[in-house]
Amino acid sequence: MTIGIVGAGQLGRMLALSGIPLGEDFLFLDPSAGSPGGQVAAQIVGEFTDRERLAELASRSAVLTFDWENVSVEALRALPRGTRICPPIPALAASQDRASEKRLFGRLKIPTTRWRAVQTEAQLQRAIGEVGLPGVLKTRRLGYDGKGQAVLRNAADAARAWREIGAAPAIYEEWIAFDCEVSIIGARGRGGDTVVYPLNGNVHAGGILRLTRAPFGSATLHRKAATYLNRVLRHFRYVGVLTIEFFVRNGVLIANEMAPRVHNSGHWTIEGAVTSQFENHVRAILGLPLGDTAARGHSAMINLIGEMPRAARVLSEPGVHFHHYGKAPRPGRKLGHCTVVEPVSARRRDQRVRRLLAGLALDIGFP
Amino acid sequence: MTIGIVGAGQLGRMLALSGIPLGEDFLFLDPSAGSPGGQVAAQIVGEFTDRERLAELASRSAVLTFDWENVSVEALRALPRGTRICPPIPALAASQDRASEKRLFGRLKIPTTRWRAVQTEAQLQRAIGEVGLPGVLKTRRLGYDGKGQAVLRNAADAARAWREIGAAPAIYEEWIAFDCEVSIIGARGRGGDTVVYPLNGNVHAGGILRLTRAPFGSATLHRKAATYLNRVLRHFRYVGVLTIEFFVRNGVLIANEMAPRVHNSGHWTIEGAVTSQFENHVRAILGLPLGDTAARGHSAMINLIGEMPRAARVLSEPGVHFHHYGKAPRPGRKLGHCTVVEPVSARRRDQRVRRLLAGLALDIGFP
Repeated sequence: MTIGIVGAGQLGRMLALSGIPLGEDFLFLDPSAGSPGGQVAAQIVGEFTDRERLAELASRSAVLTFDWENVSVEALRALPRGTRICPPIPALAASQDRASEKRLFGRLKIPTTRWRAVQTEAQLQRAIGEVGLPGVLKTRRLGYDGKGQAVLRNAADAARAWREIGAAPAIYEEWIAFDCEVSIIGARGRGGDTVVYPLNGNVHAGGILRLTRAPFGSATLHRKAATYLNRVLRHFRYVGVLTIEFFVRNGVLIANEMAPRVHNSGHWTIEGAVTSQFENHVRAILGLPLGDTAARGHSAMINLIGEMPRAARVLSEPGVHFHHYGKAPRPGRKLGHCTVVEPVSARRRDQRVRRLLAGLALDIGFP
Repeated sequence: MTIGIVGAGQLGRMLALSGIPLGEDFLFLDPSAGSPGGQVAAQIVGEFTDRERLAELASRSAVLTFDWENVSVEALRALPRGTRICPPIPALAASQDRASEKRLFGRLKIPTTRWRAVQTEAQLQRAIGEVGLPGVLKTRRLGYDGKGQAVLRNAADAARAWREIGAAPAIYEEWIAFDCEVSIIGARGRGGDTVVYPLNGNVHAGGILRLTRAPFGSATLHRKAATYLNRVLRHFRYVGVLTIEFFVRNGVLIANEMAPRVHNSGHWTIEGAVTSQFENHVRAILGLPLGDTAARGHSAMINLIGEMPRAARVLSEPGVHFHHYGKAPRPGRKLGHCTVVEPVSARRRDQRVRRLLAGLALDIGFP
């Protein structure tokens, strides 16, 4: 069967690489010829907003899925009836708008920071009064990797922040000091069966994920996160992989955002779990049985950003797995990642991470 | 870099799937359009004997390697000087001719059955007298999966056997009752570094591999096999992955044949070893550091031959990994395989194998 993927970045590439062994075909829609996905499977070159190309992709695919969640929901709704789209459009729509997302979390009793929707600078001033300071102003749409965000330390920052995010519809939320960041990834199959991966512990720098370790945190924390994830999966009668990112403060989970797709913090599952997040997404959207999500030891994934180290350098560290996305280098761009899996000891895993970071001259503030 | 692969069967396909994450490109030469390899990377459609196509492949590749060892050595020798070919041509040549192979084993003090080269029916009669009965007549060239072989129980069988194998240059060897069949797989890098995988225990039926379990057998048996493998690797200043198959009788290894390539009995390494045989072949021929060959638990690989079960059926067994080669069904054809990895217990692994074989209605004589 052919799986159509809107977007052919590294997530699409890894979806295809995990689904090809299952005997499936892939077809991408992406504006960039020679994209990471297009290097491993067929590609239609076209804009995500191009309804004709989207219709072509749908007509040539048994099921449509996404490498990127910011696809025009209107364009998807215009596709012929009977087009199978996974995950469901309402989940995509909710994840595209920070205000809808926060409201969803509220409705499902998943804790969030305090926040207000903001359409004007005057509303921002009012929101600062209600939510307090410090705070963060974030565009409702199209923010990722820390883009479209401004931090406010005092009320006088409001005008600058409003300009910085381009005076676009936004949310203002309290800035919280957190102990750590985690994410939970799971999948729901067509029959309503669900599987959840062990909790990920994430280290960001400059708004970009740099390091994930898994399994992370206590069993209680994992259970709580899995409960929240399952609420969202059920709510949407979701099919595919879903991710929620949380802050952790005093052992309490505070939902930050969700991604209706495979997630950077789940890349370790390729070698570190029995079944990868990519394979489970493919299995879910094809209606196949979901695979075992158990961890095979203690994993760590390090993002390679802006420039790629030489493969020989990374691979000289024993047991390291190297993933190159086939992208041209550019500052701040995710170009690849590497993963270590330590069979027995989390402490030894962390030692290997420190050695690897030092070897790659990466200073990401990992203690 | 582009890796050129002569032959685009499932071995080539899995080589490409393991090398793409390393950021490498692949180009195949194969007579069949839409080959398993050609479905995942670029392909030149052409015969293996077509010197022009072979020269084109070489000119477009940084290194040339093989999915199939029966490539014309003359055609390879005719390629421009400086063409990097891995593994080395003398290793290919030895593996193409059962008599050269046996002589090599003899020279390196690797035990074999007793055997004689046979060019005529009269020589066969003489060989039967010297080697004894029962015996097996095998064509020197182009035998695989039990093809080109005839068993002789008494001297009167000679004429029939000689006809059966097409009166081609052959070897006659003693038929031995063995306790089990094993294979050893390892790799040698450009700098002479070597790695060896745990020993594989193989079950054949009708001359075709059906089941591999690894790690298999005693540490002593593994060490002995690894010693023999290393002798061959050193002898050829080999670069890439090499496999030797053995019979085991009363704890003694008797070399049957070698394959200068990744091997069906090593497919379990994709999920069951830290680094797969495919990735280690790619690493070796690119001059990259070789990866850890340690087993991650107790693995079993079952070949799917002649017809493919539905993916949903295979994947309903928890923790099973499914590999579809993208080939059309045909009796006796290797179409895919599946692998189970049991973390702790070999006994539990065997129970899962039995359940899986029963679920797939495969009767391969596994007790």
